[in-house]
Amino acid sequence: MGLIVQKFGGSSVADADRIRNVARIITETYRRGHNVVAVLSAQGDTTDDLISKAKEINPHASKREMDMLLSTGEQISCSLCAMAIEAMGYSVVSLTGWQAGVQSNSSYGNARIKRVVTERILTELDKRSIVIVTGFQGINKYGDITTLGRGGSDTSAVALAASLHADLCQIYTDVDGVYTADPRLVPEAHKLEEITFDEMLELATLGAQVLHNRSVEMAKRYNVNLEVLSSFSGNPGTKVKEVVKIMEKSHVSGIAKDKNVARLALVGLADEPGIAFRIFSLLAKEKINVDIILQSIGRGDTKDISFTVAKSDTGEATRLLEENRDYIGFDHIDVNDNIAKISIVGAGMINNPGVAATMFEALFNAGINIHMISTSEIKVSVLVDLEDADRAVQVVHKKFFDEIEMQSAI
Amino acid sequence: MGLIVQKFGGSSVADADRIRNVARIITETYRRGHNVVAVLSAQGDTTDDLISKAKEINPHASKREMDMLLSTGEQISCSLCAMAIEAMGYSVVSLTGWQAGVQSNSSYGNARIKRVVTERILTELDKRSIVIVTGFQGINKYGDITTLGRGGSDTSAVALAASLHADLCQIYTDVDGVYTADPRLVPEAHKLEEITFDEMLELATLGAQVLHNRSVEMAKRYNVNLEVLSSFSGNPGTKVKEVVKIMEKSHVSGIAKDKNVARLALVGLADEPGIAFRIFSLLAKEKINVDIILQSIGRGDTKDISFTVAKSDTGEATRLLEENRDYIGFDHIDVNDNIAKISIVGAGMINNPGVAATMFEALFNAGINIHMISTSEIKVSVLVDLEDADRAVQVVHKKFFDEIEMQSAI
Repeated sequence: MGLIVQKFGGSSVADADRIRNVARIITETYRRGHNVVAVLSAQGDTTDDLISKAKEINPHASKREMDMLLSTGEQISCSLCAMAIEAMGYSVVSLTGWQAGVQSNSSYGNARIKRVVTERILTELDKRSIVIVTGFQGINKYGDITTLGRGGSDTSAVALAASLHADLCQIYTDVDGVYTADPRLVPEAHKLEEITFDEMLELATLGAQVLHNRSVEMAKRYNVNLEVLSSFSGNPGTKVKEVVKIMEKSHVSGIAKDKNVARLALVGLADEPGIAFRIFSLLAKEKINVDIILQSIGRGDTKDISFTVAKSDTGEATRLLEENRDYIGFDHIDVNDNIAKISIVGAGMINNPGVAATMFEALFNAGINIHMISTSEIKVSVLVDLEDADRAVQVVHKKFFDEIEMQSAI
Repeated sequence: MGLIVQKFGGSSVADADRIRNVARIITETYRRGHNVVAVLSAQGDTTDDLISKAKEINPHASKREMDMLLSTGEQISCSLCAMAIEAMGYSVVSLTGWQAGVQSNSSYGNARIKRVVTERILTELDKRSIVIVTGFQGINKYGDITTLGRGGSDTSAVALAASLHADLCQIYTDVDGVYTADPRLVPEAHKLEEITFDEMLELATLGAQVLHNRSVEMAKRYNVNLEVLSSFSGNPGTKVKEVVKIMEKSHVSGIAKDKNVARLALVGLADEPGIAFRIFSLLAKEKINVDIILQSIGRGDTKDISFTVAKSDTGEATRLLEENRDYIGFDHIDVNDNIAKISIVGAGMINNPGVAATMFEALFNAGINIHMISTSEIKVSVLVDLEDADRAVQVVHKKFFDEIEMQSAI
């Protein structure tokens, strides 16, 4: 008998039928002899509906009052789910974030969990009750309700799993698990049985919207075994853990596409030390994240620096740099937001120097131009034109997965 | 500068415009130099909507989970109202029942407030913040959310006013105050400037749905000055207090009609001691409230006992008595639910024996038959046929108010 934390997202509890479905999954786990703590998000569009209610009254409402408002969404879904489980004849109790002891800092709207005081949950588990906990929320030291920001329910689930030393933390979503690429884009993409935390982190950051990044970081830090699976299909999902047992045939775990990216190029910079520092400390001060950076080799007395930012930061970054044109000293800014970032991720990559080359080869063969390249120990990213992005994912996936599968079939 | 507790019901906060209106009332009171604690109900039909959501999932959900669900309604209206007040530029904070320190017993769905730990509210008032508190809810010793039952927001407001030693507790509703009779029925009915707690209690019990009974009892016990007024009109309302200063011209404060009543008659009982005890202890055990009781004088060896119950209890009471026919010993039960109770209420009545006679005279002149009579120190109630009920209220009101006004006009 173990303890399993299960998290269900908003689409999994969107209506009465789906809540009953979630209640079935929870009680089946319980009937197999496990203790179950389930973490639920708000139903479907509840959070968005509450936000528009607030906007009608005050478009600039304080985050403290927004959290007071939004936290009701999970309280509703959790009590309804508890009622569904009661109807099936099981002992169950629903708890809000503060009742479950989820203590956070005071960053209303985007709070961080500091600790979980598990007394109340443990008392209920001792009684062999199923425990339903509101995701996405906590309580700060003033006794005020906080929310963890979008996707925070994943983090709630992992924090509870870590604090309760759960044997497994299952994240139920509307997809079957983690795929080698987006199945809508690459029909041949296959589901991974296992993936490491680091790979998952790279994939999450790079736009494979399966797991909330903070939850993966926390799972890695506290070594919480995760599983991503669907609340609709009943199929086994993808396990996320520190070290994967099965050596995948490929050194690449997955391929991700990120369209939320723009490239800025500062042209005609003086070829002297300290220029890069000026540029990126300026951007850092305004909390603009910079991803790939490329500095041209100086030609005569000038050089260029290119870098990528999130598409939504483009205007702010450009304004900031223009305001400091004299301080930095450049000729002009060139902006290109008609691009996408394609990345391959895999823990096996570091010991296999041919992986990057294989990727470039696939893109070259398809006539896709590469603007910039960035590599880390477990990732290779390239910038390509937006119109080439989907094709890039397909040819790279074909190169790494289909050809290898064909080989093993021979 | 004083402290004023203001309570706003569900219709007063039903939509964004009405919430802004409530925010205006609160901030105007604040601008006059007062500290303000406002207690809000859930918006319009929110509570009913939540109940039907629950029923869809589990028609027999536990009261503990129902309270978890229903308490979200006030949390939503309170945070929205706080946002409206923020938009007007005032310092404000919304608090749930547990944040406001409203501690109750554990009768989920119908909890009683045990005490209010006022630290948090006082801290906020010290900062000159307006405090918005969710009505209708508290927290029990297990840290679980409880609700106080329908109309419980009035009780929340009075409990807070008592604990905070507020100078005044204003109950804002959709009527202007307490009237001498239902103005929809008696156009000449006039608003009372003042009324005593006891009179208000009798009127509330008797179906003048202005104030929740428990709230009046609590106000009387802790001597909290109440005022009933409209959130829409801006007119002065009715003050409810221990002793009224102005001696009303009439000894009667108001006239109430209660249609939720049925008369049961047990015919052919043995004329011996202990019969009444058997009947009413049976009903009490099943928590069926009995109001007027009338026992006929014995004729030969049998007698009859008639009494009234709430119309909704008729079936249950009849079943119970039929099951115990041998134990009680009666010939048959006669049920009449085509009746209504008309009552006059007034603290001055006790010293004025002519009041009851004046009422009977008015009814006699109008040809209205009286089935049963019941009197207390400040009340006279009669049972009449349902079809005569509205006319009875009108002629009695005319007798007590119009004729006296004419006298004073002479």
